Amino acid sequence: MASTFGTLFRISTFGESHGPAIGVIVDGCPPRIPLTVEDLQAELDRRKPGQSKIVTPRKEPDSASILSGVVDGQTLGTPIAVVVQNTDQRPSAYKEMEAAYRPSHADYTYDAKYGVRAISGGGRASARETIGRVAAGAIAKKVIRAAIPAYQCVAFVKSVQHISAAETICQNPDPDVIESNIVRTCDPAAAEKMIQLIEKVRSEGDSVGGVIECVVRGVPPGLGEPVFDKLEADLAKAMLSLPATKGFELGSGFSGTLLTGREHNDEFYMDGDKVRTRTNRSGGIQGGISNGETIIFRVAFKPTATILQEQKTVSAAGTDTTLAARGRHDPCVLPRAVPIVEAMVHLVIVDHFLRQRAQIMDNVA
Amino acid sequence: MASTFGTLFRISTFGESHGPAIGVIVDGCPPRIPLTVEDLQAELDRRKPGQSKIVTPRKEPDSASILSGVVDGQTLGTPIAVVVQNTDQRPSAYKEMEAAYRPSHADYTYDAKYGVRAISGGGRASARETIGRVAAGAIAKKVIRAAIPAYQCVAFVKSVQHISAAETICQNPDPDVIESNIVRTCDPAAAEKMIQLIEKVRSEGDSVGGVIECVVRGVPPGLGEPVFDKLEADLAKAMLSLPATKGFELGSGFSGTLLTGREHNDEFYMDGDKVRTRTNRSGGIQGGISNGETIIFRVAFKPTATILQEQKTVSAAGTDTTLAARGRHDPCVLPRAVPIVEAMVHLVIVDHFLRQRAQIMDNVA
Amino acid sequence: MASTFGTLFRISTFGESHGPAIGVIVDGCPPRIPLTVEDLQAELDRRKPGQSKIVTPRKEPDSASILSGVVDGQTLGTPIAVVVQNTDQRPSAYKEMEAAYRPSHADYTYDAKYGVRAISGGGRASARETIGRVAAGAIAKKVIRAAIPAYQCVAFVKSVQHISAAETICQNPDPDVIESNIVRTCDPAAAEKMIQLIEKVRSEGDSVGGVIECVVRGVPPGLGEPVFDKLEADLAKAMLSLPATKGFELGSGFSGTLLTGREHNDEFYMDGDKVRTRTNRSGGIQGGISNGETIIFRVAFKPTATILQEQKTVSAAGTDTTLAARGRHDPCVLPRAVPIVEAMVHLVIVDHFLRQRAQIMDNVA
Amino acid sequence: MASTFGTLFRISTFGESHGPAIGVIVDGCPPRIPLTVEDLQAELDRRKPGQSKIVTPRKEPDSASILSGVVDGQTLGTPIAVVVQNTDQRPSAYKEMEAAYRPSHADYTYDAKYGVRAISGGGRASARETIGRVAAGAIAKKVIRAAIPAYQCVAFVKSVQHISAAETICQNPDPDVIESNIVRTCDPAAAEKMIQLIEKVRSEGDSVGGVIECVVRGVPPGLGEPVFDKLEADLAKAMLSLPATKGFELGSGFSGTLLTGREHNDEFYMDGDKVRTRTNRSGGIQGGISNGETIIFRVAFKPTATILQEQKTVSAAGTDTTLAARGRHDPCVLPRAVPIVEAMVHLVIVDHFLRQRAQIMDNVA
Repeated sequence: MASTFGTLFRISTFGESHGPAIGVIVDGCPPRIPLTVEDLQAELDRRKPGQSKIVTPRKEPDSASILSGVVDGQTLGTPIAVVVQNTDQRPSAYKEMEAAYRPSHADYTYDAKYGVRAISGGGRASARETIGRVAAGAIAKKVIRAAIPAYQCVAFVKSVQHISAAETICQNPDPDVIESNIVRTCDPAAAEKMIQLIEKVRSEGDSVGGVIECVVRGVPPGLGEPVFDKLEADLAKAMLSLPATKGFELGSGFSGTLLTGREHNDEFYMDGDKVRTRTNRSGGIQGGISNGETIIFRVAFKPTATILQEQKTVSAAGTDTTLAARGRHDPCVLPRAVPIVEAMVHLVIVDHFLRQRAQIMDNVA
Repeated sequence: MASTFGTLFRISTFGESHGPAIGVIVDGCPPRIPLTVEDLQAELDRRKPGQSKIVTPRKEPDSASILSGVVDGQTLGTPIAVVVQNTDQRPSAYKEMEAAYRPSHADYTYDAKYGVRAISGGGRASARETIGRVAAGAIAKKVIRAAIPAYQCVAFVKSVQHISAAETICQNPDPDVIESNIVRTCDPAAAEKMIQLIEKVRSEGDSVGGVIECVVRGVPPGLGEPVFDKLEADLAKAMLSLPATKGFELGSGFSGTLLTGREHNDEFYMDGDKVRTRTNRSGGIQGGISNGETIIFRVAFKPTATILQEQKTVSAAGTDTTLAARGRHDPCVLPRAVPIVEAMVHLVIVDHFLRQRAQIMDNVA
Repeated sequence: MASTFGTLFRISTFGESHGPAIGVIVDGCPPRIPLTVEDLQAELDRRKPGQSKIVTPRKEPDSASILSGVVDGQTLGTPIAVVVQNTDQRPSAYKEMEAAYRPSHADYTYDAKYGVRAISGGGRASARETIGRVAAGAIAKKVIRAAIPAYQCVAFVKSVQHISAAETICQNPDPDVIESNIVRTCDPAAAEKMIQLIEKVRSEGDSVGGVIECVVRGVPPGLGEPVFDKLEADLAKAMLSLPATKGFELGSGFSGTLLTGREHNDEFYMDGDKVRTRTNRSGGIQGGISNGETIIFRVAFKPTATILQEQKTVSAAGTDTTLAARGRHDPCVLPRAVPIVEAMVHLVIVDHFLRQRAQIMDNVA
Repeated sequence: MASTFGTLFRISTFGESHGPAIGVIVDGCPPRIPLTVEDLQAELDRRKPGQSKIVTPRKEPDSASILSGVVDGQTLGTPIAVVVQNTDQRPSAYKEMEAAYRPSHADYTYDAKYGVRAISGGGRASARETIGRVAAGAIAKKVIRAAIPAYQCVAFVKSVQHISAAETICQNPDPDVIESNIVRTCDPAAAEKMIQLIEKVRSEGDSVGGVIECVVRGVPPGLGEPVFDKLEADLAKAMLSLPATKGFELGSGFSGTLLTGREHNDEFYMDGDKVRTRTNRSGGIQGGISNGETIIFRVAFKPTATILQEQKTVSAAGTDTTLAARGRHDPCVLPRAVPIVEAMVHLVIVDHFLRQRAQIMDNVA
């Protein structure tokens, strides 16, 4: 169950970083949704390694194949299996890991949990696992768009360490601007500084983290379940299930704790026949249920754990030792994490969309 | 499914605020765990209304009854049903709500979702729902303690609006100190200021929020699942499923994004035959799995949405109107939220503890 | 999870036979379905003890209370909790069970599983558990009927030991006839013989079993999932989850294995614009999915395990001993099992109905 | 969810008959279980087409590849993905199906459910789907055997149409005898007659069904959950989820309804320090929980729906028509169904074994 996400639109990912393949099964996708492998590949290309000078130079084409669930460019309603072969493996770069636990990685905890692990490439703990999420997210987006053409989910890098995009620009992020710079921020001026910072820390064998913000428009009122499966709870789980994440906040978030109720509440007003709020400190969700306003949240990503500088650590055999990573790593995961964040949003939204459809019986008096 | 939480230790809550009763069923509790209704009542008394001058003056005894699953002070392994009667209901205090949606509440979103709602007392969206969580959490704690006597989970109020507990005290919070002040913070000096602030905003008909921090000790390495059901992901979901929460962060959290990898990584060392980390920016979880260090996280609670000041809003009929709440409300939810946060931690930990037990086959070579 | 059934319309039962109460939570019931406690009581009265001379003379009113999820005679979409107090308990009648395992009962296996059990009244293994199912089934029926007015589910006693209802009458069972005789068979002539047989075996301190047949009309084509959650698979699980059941067969069932494919296949024909089959050896389900024909299945119930004659057995302490039951027991469970079988059908159908609703996106081209 | 089975040992199958591949993901397999692709292939070879003169002559090697979850011949505890390429496809043989619904097949019901289907080869409704079950079952068997070396599950053909294996031989079926005849029955004399019958009906373009019996030894007392997830309920669901099945019975089954309680009850006795029953009409399960005796059940398989004789039917366009199948089909599915039945037993048993492990806390006083 560890590797399954969703209730009605349910995905199960599989694969180790240096095993034969990585992939996902999507069960519960509605039938007759137009879908081609290109829909998936477009998103996978946004997360693949080697796409720019500030990400890992590994060269993996990450070419997806659809093994089932689609015929003649249409979904069948049956499970959709997607597989990506692993190709650019250099197990030699991971030799040190056999002997030493990488600090702030999952090497030690996997051993503690399973008593065994796929050492090469980080195995199951590698961020390559997110390939399956991105492929499934692309399918989810197609389903949502088929029902809600106005649906739009835009994630972007809000900050890299101390460098932040301008708040005014963040309030209306332009997807084209975001994709036009390799760091995937909405603020071109900040992009330059972020890139310089990433290149600098890489040259030092170090790494940096930052914050990704995501705005989701077009979600109709009524999605989300009122108690445990609140929409923000499922988004929080989705985000904290991503590698390297340390925090999640919705709408006003932590800074909202500095306001009084009077200052924080979002007053309602009528916009024609629609109920709207004048402010959006709620972040588009109230009582766990979408209210039709833009959903806004932020996710904290820690600096990449793998650094080339030497660090103290211990061996699997239980002796103190040191470790300096070799290999090709991302000095900052955020640019490639942007499409992954979006994929997880699609997966949460499509699941709650289908759940809401099941529940509301239109033909009942 | 909205109202079910957990995989092996599974709870299902039920009840509207002003309906006949509120409660929970716990399914999957191991047999032969000592359990009495007093175990539950002790925790329920920490969350009940009317316990101090800074919380709502409503007088609900919140007396629990165990209807099943326990005989002669021992669990049977069968579902444990717990019921609390609702007694202090003043539906008249909610008359206004029939006509007007409370800003930043769930009135509008429930109508959008269901087309019907239990108006009096907030219905299912009332924080009274957390009674079931606290009762179930008390059972979970008994199960964990039976297996791990050293297990300890301590939540406390870290800040109320701009007033924070001293960081040095937060690093080693004393449960007795926390319970000795009505705001449930670890810092007695800050407690006084927090109480004054809460009394002040109440007198103004306003409200405040803040941050709760939680430290969990004694969790063995190996709990948590590596992909979607990461321990931090399930904690994040648990916390964001609580009313009034806006954010969650683990270990270094959002501020961790300001460090480099070199600064952020937790180096390993051997402490006798135990693998330990010198720092704990990971917050006790690496790769989704506990590493044996203290689990530390923080939760942001917004200021209470219900305020006595008049606010603009709209009616269910779709006209602009105003609303000033009457009734008896918490000007700050944090003091009563402390045991609720702990209950959710117990529920997450016990579930992953049982999942890990199922998985590790000791008798396999 | 042991005590939860269903995917979208999900029920969780609780309660021991001689504990304070028995009940159920229904989560996932659509909102705005008309529902009163009388809807539940009507079905509970059909399964309650003491209703005729051929069932147990225990006197339990089995009066249901709805604790949540319903306001003003309408469902809210939130969990519906139903509780029935246990009243007519005579623990003294179960004294022997403390010392001796009842043959073909669950006493020994509960001890093997849990190392503890609620001895009095059979505890969780008592058929009183089905009260929760019947109450939940009554809710499910209301939901189905709201969407499909033509839906009709009729179960009846087809045979008691060697005495069978006439096959021609079974092919078109009349609900009024079934409810008009205390054995709940469709054939009045057979009813008399069945009643005489049951009275005879009771007088001998013995018991009998038999077969219940169930016909379900009005189920639209398309319900059921094609692989594991086939409609017949979920029906089979539902039936084999009932106490005392030993077998399930759909349509032609075991006797269908004596035909050739030529003889067994159900040819299709057009009935106006509807696809129909001329025969119905499929029993209304093909490939796991309803085909719009009447769903027909049969369930085998073994003779009641509790008999008043002395039997050899062993004690919980591990010594050979003998046991003669005292107390008030059903010499034949079938008359009271009829409404239970129907309840489980309602639960399976409503769940697949909601699942199908979620999946088919009408607004997609 | 349609395509997922199991709670802790959870499998998800995917694939259409004539799509690129068929396969399965197993999530929840314990770590450090010895496993090679040969373990899977041995079972797949027992179900593959073309293995004898009485099954379909299609030539599919059904060669499995393990894509994840296994390193150095050991399971990792992570999802195990298994893929089998589809090779011997002759879509032309299915041309007729585009125009006409095959009687007693899933063509019509898939269209009713999804509004689209993979026509060639039967798509998702093809029995090729069971490849994933058999592969997963082989993994499950390895897990059970690692913990319970004495575990043994033997299924065999008990009858083909009117020809039955001798009851005395069925009571102690010899796996070597079963595998030594191509019909997979335990009675060599009956085998000859069954083979002749199958060859005869094939030559007539017709088909036959029959009954498979399965005996499972070595299951410890205590597996199974007492209410909905009774061991027999999960076995019934597992069996009725297989293509072409029409019935399931445990132990005495339908014929048990002809006995009185006195005759039917299984008396307990002490066998050393073990609790045993002298008879086994319960079929090894009491109250939903294994009692340590041999688990015995039977499954009815209908005659293969695909026959070469011309049958009346309707077209997808809604007109009456006729259809005579071409292509290469099994005139009797039972010989190849034997390993599939066993696989489903392994999956049910391993899941309940892990669930029981999670629940019993040995270290609790």
